[in-house]
Amino acid sequence: MSQLSEQPAGTSVPTSADVARLAGVSRATVSYVLNDNTSVRISEPTRRRVREAAADLGYVPHAAARSLRAGHTRMVLLPAARSPAGPLYQRFLTGLETGLRRLDYTVVQYGSAGMDADEAARAWAELRPVAVVSPGNIALTPYGTGVLTRSGAKAVITLGPQPVEGAHALVVDQREVGGAAVRHLLSRGRRGIGVVMPQEPGLAPFAEPRLAGAVRAVEESGADARVRPLPLRYEEESAADLAARWRTLGLDAVFAYDDEYAMLLMRALQDAGIGVPAETAVIGADDLMLGRLLRPRLSSVTMELATAQSPAEMIDRLVQSPGGAPERHYPLRATVVARESS
Amino acid sequence: MSQLSEQPAGTSVPTSADVARLAGVSRATVSYVLNDNTSVRISEPTRRRVREAAADLGYVPHAAARSLRAGHTRMVLLPAARSPAGPLYQRFLTGLETGLRRLDYTVVQYGSAGMDADEAARAWAELRPVAVVSPGNIALTPYGTGVLTRSGAKAVITLGPQPVEGAHALVVDQREVGGAAVRHLLSRGRRGIGVVMPQEPGLAPFAEPRLAGAVRAVEESGADARVRPLPLRYEEESAADLAARWRTLGLDAVFAYDDEYAMLLMRALQDAGIGVPAETAVIGADDLMLGRLLRPRLSSVTMELATAQSPAEMIDRLVQSPGGAPERHYPLRATVVARESS
Repeated sequence: MSQLSEQPAGTSVPTSADVARLAGVSRATVSYVLNDNTSVRISEPTRRRVREAAADLGYVPHAAARSLRAGHTRMVLLPAARSPAGPLYQRFLTGLETGLRRLDYTVVQYGSAGMDADEAARAWAELRPVAVVSPGNIALTPYGTGVLTRSGAKAVITLGPQPVEGAHALVVDQREVGGAAVRHLLSRGRRGIGVVMPQEPGLAPFAEPRLAGAVRAVEESGADARVRPLPLRYEEESAADLAARWRTLGLDAVFAYDDEYAMLLMRALQDAGIGVPAETAVIGADDLMLGRLLRPRLSSVTMELATAQSPAEMIDRLVQSPGGAPERHYPLRATVVARESS
Repeated sequence: MSQLSEQPAGTSVPTSADVARLAGVSRATVSYVLNDNTSVRISEPTRRRVREAAADLGYVPHAAARSLRAGHTRMVLLPAARSPAGPLYQRFLTGLETGLRRLDYTVVQYGSAGMDADEAARAWAELRPVAVVSPGNIALTPYGTGVLTRSGAKAVITLGPQPVEGAHALVVDQREVGGAAVRHLLSRGRRGIGVVMPQEPGLAPFAEPRLAGAVRAVEESGADARVRPLPLRYEEESAADLAARWRTLGLDAVFAYDDEYAMLLMRALQDAGIGVPAETAVIGADDLMLGRLLRPRLSSVTMELATAQSPAEMIDRLVQSPGGAPERHYPLRATVVARESS
């Protein structure tokens, strides 16, 4: 294998050698100073001279060369989020990114549009990340996690409602969202409860546990009530079809998966002459602004992760000591915001 | 500088040496085959043996080592999008990502949450991308583009409505969005036209050209009409304040920046007893589903990029031959979808 150079051939990219020359020190000293290595004593004036030379030249260290030298990277791969999973997931990813960066990881997002899960895993492995966080809507296979682990990833973590074989999993328990919605509807005296099941791709792993939580809440209540799943596409026509059949279903309430589906269905029910909440109570989830703008104002379930240790710290621990329990369950704390629609 | 190894020390990551041993060929041959290098004649059975050995071992090439060997990377950095700029921008980024991957670039997104523009540029430079695409809501400085260029980036491209000194710019002309909305309102006989100016951070670069396009459309029409900018925060209270003052403003129409602000303002106007469209016509932009669910149904401006050459091809051309014209203007084609609110 040929000697690798930090400097792309044929360009005038400043190198650490240029910094060393300008500062009048060795390249090793430049490396110690710019990598904040404190195992070697270097005087403060020298450190300052090196930093000034680097700034003058516009030199920045080369992450790839540094990680090849160190034998490992500090890169954590978050596949780019085009998840339909809503604002909780967005907040979670932002917090994870900030937390990992504070722990001195380089956080990189890698898109996977148009790839299958194994292609995506191979592409991610080429970047040699030390940890990979895979969103719940990519069904990582045991083969894919194997490719990543063999390429040096210390931790492969899947997010979302379902664990994946061979990977660590942050399993966010969605059942409580359905449970909280149904307990609220039961407390309002409703007994025939529809649960919207979105037909859009990628949502079933979220919708199914919400339905399971709804069913369990009815069982635990001892009430003479029933739950009925209602398939719905996010299209006006699908909602109008459902609304046209509504009175044959014998329902007096609906948990509409989230606020957007709730807006769609509530509009269709109103257009079909079904009073909300008089004839049918409606509740969504996520507590979006739009819910407060609807008439009647939309009731909603808000949720937050109930966790003491931050996910960034958990990932750091997995990187430091790989192995251990493959799953970690993150319960959701779900709270009902009761407004006029239920 | 010490000899760099492709294999992190102390792990059992399969290397190209392992593949070479299993396939009974040299490491050079492994490299030629797996990098699809056709400058060397290698028989198809040998190629197949190398590929099978790589698959058996779960070997994937190391992007960083490969790019250090090659002296350049194929990495294009798209800073992670948390832009409030709407669905057009999302579609644009997805198309760009797919197009670049088809041209054999590695597309990586790098978050910049909590960093200022210069910190972000330095962090991006550490990854030694061959091209950087910066979203319009990060105000890249000439210093930042200099750091990126000196670290080897052949093209630094800013997206969004405003060019940045020292960088190539894809300038998407937002004026036509305001122009199309106002021409529609004028054709409905409206003469006192409010234009919502969102007060949320990052939106001014989009809102200001939309306002400018609205003003110009009135001037060009020759109509005895006027345009009035209306600051609005995306909060119910701000919308209620504006609605309470509405009848003192002498307006009979409003272009509400986009559909979400339109929904907010239309709800506040209705709650204040102002008829839509009888007393005030309302039009948004983006043609979101929610607009069709409102009553009255919301009129909206849709937009698409009017461009023959794809942005991915343009970036590829800049990488192949750096330099050239620093700006490229992408006109927007804006079309009004007239519904009940205007």
